[in-house]
Amino acid sequence: MREWVNNIRRVEPYTPGEQPKMANIIKLNTNENPYPPSPMVEEALRKMDVGFLRKYPDPNSDLLVSAIAEFYGVEKDQVFVGVGSDDVLGMAFLTFFNGSLPVLFPDITYSFYDVWASLYRIPYEQIPLDAEFRICPEDYMKDNGGIVIANPNAPTGTELPLSEIERILGANQKSVVVLDEAYVDFGGTSALPLVEKYENLLVVQTFSKSRSLAGVRVGFAIGHRDLIAALNAVKNSYNSYTMNTPAILLGTAAVKDRAYFEDCCRKVAATRERVKKELSALGFTFGDSVTNFIFAKREGTSAKELFQALRENGIFVRWFNKPRISEYLRITMGTDEEMDRFLRFLKSWLAS
Amino acid sequence: MREWVNNIRRVEPYTPGEQPKMANIIKLNTNENPYPPSPMVEEALRKMDVGFLRKYPDPNSDLLVSAIAEFYGVEKDQVFVGVGSDDVLGMAFLTFFNGSLPVLFPDITYSFYDVWASLYRIPYEQIPLDAEFRICPEDYMKDNGGIVIANPNAPTGTELPLSEIERILGANQKSVVVLDEAYVDFGGTSALPLVEKYENLLVVQTFSKSRSLAGVRVGFAIGHRDLIAALNAVKNSYNSYTMNTPAILLGTAAVKDRAYFEDCCRKVAATRERVKKELSALGFTFGDSVTNFIFAKREGTSAKELFQALRENGIFVRWFNKPRISEYLRITMGTDEEMDRFLRFLKSWLAS
Repeated sequence: MREWVNNIRRVEPYTPGEQPKMANIIKLNTNENPYPPSPMVEEALRKMDVGFLRKYPDPNSDLLVSAIAEFYGVEKDQVFVGVGSDDVLGMAFLTFFNGSLPVLFPDITYSFYDVWASLYRIPYEQIPLDAEFRICPEDYMKDNGGIVIANPNAPTGTELPLSEIERILGANQKSVVVLDEAYVDFGGTSALPLVEKYENLLVVQTFSKSRSLAGVRVGFAIGHRDLIAALNAVKNSYNSYTMNTPAILLGTAAVKDRAYFEDCCRKVAATRERVKKELSALGFTFGDSVTNFIFAKREGTSAKELFQALRENGIFVRWFNKPRISEYLRITMGTDEEMDRFLRFLKSWLAS
Repeated sequence: MREWVNNIRRVEPYTPGEQPKMANIIKLNTNENPYPPSPMVEEALRKMDVGFLRKYPDPNSDLLVSAIAEFYGVEKDQVFVGVGSDDVLGMAFLTFFNGSLPVLFPDITYSFYDVWASLYRIPYEQIPLDAEFRICPEDYMKDNGGIVIANPNAPTGTELPLSEIERILGANQKSVVVLDEAYVDFGGTSALPLVEKYENLLVVQTFSKSRSLAGVRVGFAIGHRDLIAALNAVKNSYNSYTMNTPAILLGTAAVKDRAYFEDCCRKVAATRERVKKELSALGFTFGDSVTNFIFAKREGTSAKELFQALRENGIFVRWFNKPRISEYLRITMGTDEEMDRFLRFLKSWLAS
């Protein structure tokens, strides 16, 4: 009996950042934006025609694709959209990495790259960051089946300069290079201008951070039209209707409000620079984050203990129980009021 | 140059049913519900807290899972939800069919089964329906790596009696049996009561047809808690946040309005029975559909020509240019007014 159990796929369990349901907590653990979506998103929500929801969504997400193309000054056939950048990145692995050489990405980076490689049986090699958690471009100058780099990287928050990215691209004209720019809008430099120069470059971004729409699941890729056509062909071959109508309509509204978007990014970046100063004064060290989080450690302080102390006081940050990074905490930037409460707690805890 | 093209996955292109954008057309081609979603869905849309959308959705879709469990009288840990039943079915293929024996499903059925099998490198065998497009239970009584049956079947619209389904289940205790009940609510008999008896039975349904929410992408599976736990483990291992917050909230509202749901299903079924009589009188033949569509042919009439004539007159039905079924049209049930216009056109076209 129960022989069917033998045919069940075995997987490594994944634990997403906690989504605690208590009131009055400070949630600095999943890199969400502390500010609400644009008022134009609210307007789109209120105006949405409920009768239209009985129909299948537009499988091409034309409204959303057009809005993104217009925002970034590219053609519509250079834009692919998906259910958050996880969906877009997973689709890129499935579509572009069907060779026999290993796909290369850093050892400390977004935790799903090796998961997607395993899922689709793609050979891969995790290349160690240096002791300061920096990517060394030379490490990516060898035969490979593809390259994936998060820039700015997560959970470190630091950026490889665009000139170094271009060196990697220049040395890798035989494989597709995917840049995951989930956090670029808070102060990083996007490689988007390079897509006109390099046909094998795919830039992936998300609405979950800088556009305050994590709950709506919208991500996108921009690249050469042949890359985008390949992504669409693979996606449509097995699931045509992934983006629902609310995601298309709310995402479109969000991307159209450039002023609000830029203002939110500026506010988050200002908070980050202020918190950096305060953390330094308290003895923390960290790379020069250009994102909406800071990845920090403190000599003589156990990250795990601090994580738990914060948690007990209703402040949720992220601690990774993993090699090389277990002495660090990843702290998402909240509102200024939230960060003040966080810093006050830190001061009193360190003094006790 | 462009060696990266060699590593791109090759796929069969898929063409979904047309989503024409002209006004005043009659859309009987994608099996959507002609009635709008429940007024409770509209209320949920108007009440939705836009500020909440900045946060990641609940990865467990707890509100929606709870509402489905309550509606069907099962436990929460017996319910899995996904982005439409396509996502749920694809996840079932990925999760349960990792053996070396072929997975069995009919030759004429939902067109994505072989696509998912190919995508995940699962061996499969397509078993021919008989000359009357019926499933023969005996064909499914041999060693296999899994069984997938759409019941009622699509595009035929006809149903295998529950007693025959149970014979197949009884003979297949070694593999997981997936029943795709996308169309069951319009007059079919669900196998849901059998999930308590057969641990290896997974019943999959969708909100796209009977609950008028195709645009929101909600599907679900009900089965033994071990099956559901396996689906959740696989899904969470590579993408935790597939269901967006609008889908969770609007889907929850839809499932809570039982009276509206039953009324819509009754209306669609009544229209179907009336259209059957009219089509018979016009010389069409078809199986005894229990769904929201009729799969019909007419001796001496070219399905392709009729399909094109209808199309030129703003009436969209579905014609499949495939072996065995190219003389049939699949006609979704619209409102009574839409079906009257469809029937009037048929009469004048056949008379001309």
